[in-house]
Amino acid sequence: MATSTDGTRQVTIAQVATLAGVSVPTVSKVLNGRTDVAPATRARVEALLAEHGYRRRRARVSQAPGLLDLVFHELDSAWAQEVIKGVEDTASLHRVGVVLSELGGAHRPPQELIDDILARKPLGVILVLSSLDATQRHQLESRSIPFVVVDTAGEPPAGVPTVGSNNWNGGLSAVRHLLALGHRRIGVVSGPHDVLCSRARVDGYRSALEEAGVPWDPDLVRWGDFAVNGGYRHARDLLALPERPTAIFAGSDLQSLGVMRAAREAGLRIPEDLSVVGYDDLPISQWLGPSLTTVRQPLREMASTATQMLMDLAGGATLPNPRIDLATELVVRESTAPPADPPA
Amino acid sequence: MATSTDGTRQVTIAQVATLAGVSVPTVSKVLNGRTDVAPATRARVEALLAEHGYRRRRARVSQAPGLLDLVFHELDSAWAQEVIKGVEDTASLHRVGVVLSELGGAHRPPQELIDDILARKPLGVILVLSSLDATQRHQLESRSIPFVVVDTAGEPPAGVPTVGSNNWNGGLSAVRHLLALGHRRIGVVSGPHDVLCSRARVDGYRSALEEAGVPWDPDLVRWGDFAVNGGYRHARDLLALPERPTAIFAGSDLQSLGVMRAAREAGLRIPEDLSVVGYDDLPISQWLGPSLTTVRQPLREMASTATQMLMDLAGGATLPNPRIDLATELVVRESTAPPADPPA
Repeated sequence: MATSTDGTRQVTIAQVATLAGVSVPTVSKVLNGRTDVAPATRARVEALLAEHGYRRRRARVSQAPGLLDLVFHELDSAWAQEVIKGVEDTASLHRVGVVLSELGGAHRPPQELIDDILARKPLGVILVLSSLDATQRHQLESRSIPFVVVDTAGEPPAGVPTVGSNNWNGGLSAVRHLLALGHRRIGVVSGPHDVLCSRARVDGYRSALEEAGVPWDPDLVRWGDFAVNGGYRHARDLLALPERPTAIFAGSDLQSLGVMRAAREAGLRIPEDLSVVGYDDLPISQWLGPSLTTVRQPLREMASTATQMLMDLAGGATLPNPRIDLATELVVRESTAPPADPPA
Repeated sequence: MATSTDGTRQVTIAQVATLAGVSVPTVSKVLNGRTDVAPATRARVEALLAEHGYRRRRARVSQAPGLLDLVFHELDSAWAQEVIKGVEDTASLHRVGVVLSELGGAHRPPQELIDDILARKPLGVILVLSSLDATQRHQLESRSIPFVVVDTAGEPPAGVPTVGSNNWNGGLSAVRHLLALGHRRIGVVSGPHDVLCSRARVDGYRSALEEAGVPWDPDLVRWGDFAVNGGYRHARDLLALPERPTAIFAGSDLQSLGVMRAAREAGLRIPEDLSVVGYDDLPISQWLGPSLTTVRQPLREMASTATQMLMDLAGGATLPNPRIDLATELVVRESTAPPADPPA
């Protein structure tokens, strides 16, 4: 086997073909995401490529402008819009086209999408709230297509570059603010329990309660999704509790819209009867009535950072910090106030 | 010159090269969007391609999955999100990747973007609230790259396929609704005056007033952009008029958010003191407090239709209806009511 520049021995396509008992063009087809190869052959070739750590040398594409693939788990939110905007801005600086895909809510791309990506040979892939299984990861790695994960859903495997924001801190600052106003019964409507950022925020919430000596009531913690309707449903339940919360910390600005509706339907004024804190600081949150106190998540910057990391990786650089969490910041507006009837 | 299947005589690359006094590879470079050709040569070749109506035969791309280019004048709105979703849904049915670009608010793509498009040879291009100049149009046509315009900004040239919605009808139904409730002083905050859809809606507004015998007061008509801040600024002006409107018809749901804020700041309750009608029916509009009466614009369907038209064109079909306007529909919610003090 040939020795590559970094001193590791590099398997060649011809060697993989011999080991797999297939022709060189067949290995080449597999590398290019072609589907006209028998599944068993394909699996065998992929396994050998992964086993021997095959890395295709990146050809400088001279004619076609570069592309990057931006893969969303879901496009249905203003949140996604901010991420798109951040990626688009940075990609266009590099004159790189952005190919957008969504997984319909799934957190792992179907093989068909991976095949398409292998075939169009992008400079790299940005995955938002989604990740690759080990096989898919090997597939990209063996073609030297780098990838970066924005807001990882689960724990990312070692070596996968990620950009997120400090969710634990976000939860902490939101709940500290409510505690400082005098709230003691604070509900939380978070995202899915299996998504890391939701858990980090709820942990921040618990820490804030602990440091204030307020006991933690599991009844006040609800897991759901980040959509409006989830906020509405959970807030309705929370507000129907015998001892209802005087404040709700929502997992997203969209959830907050749902919380606010539930409050209106229950005849509660915001912030006089119920304080609401959102998460994200989407552009609309300052325009709501009342305007929303929320945790600013720097979505565009996160997306820009991920794009720049990808460009660096595509250019052959090594990332000094492959895992970056940007700071979150509490933005206080009109939707929070001291509780009407603070405990003595 | 060769005769093509439709009976027209088709100029060849070699003939264009001879006429331009350049080599065949030079013409080929120009066709492929390469920038390593002297600008004067490039312009001469482009002019000859346009003059002789050159059409590149589309090669069936067998290996790489197809792409389409989706070009936005601006990405900063939930409106854009709906269009993206509609394009993405339909494109993924055809297993076509969507390359997203935005023009930073411009209504015409820079040449750089056109070059990138020529180089990546997409199945087609969807332009949203933007259009091509004659040269750019010839450039796409000579490479047989079809394009479709969604919500044309200006008057589209003959032969350009467009998908829009019935904006005039939307304006008419919104204002008829307000008139039926008893409003007579009805303000309108529309989009830019030079964008066709804004003008059509304001004309619908005027028609509704005319059929109700309500005189038209130019003071009550404001042109701006579709953003929240525009709605806020114009509504503040309208509400400061000596005889303020009792209802405002906004050009977008986002503008409505600005109108609602201006009303709150003026101490006016919605709908008791001021009725508000939006435009678009974005997903958030049902969640606002009060929920928004608005004109539903079928953005996703418009985008899906445009995508399907593009696929048909890319497949060589002729469109039976190259200009499609989908129906708009008034959705009545909580933000409209009879005026507090109806005229006798």
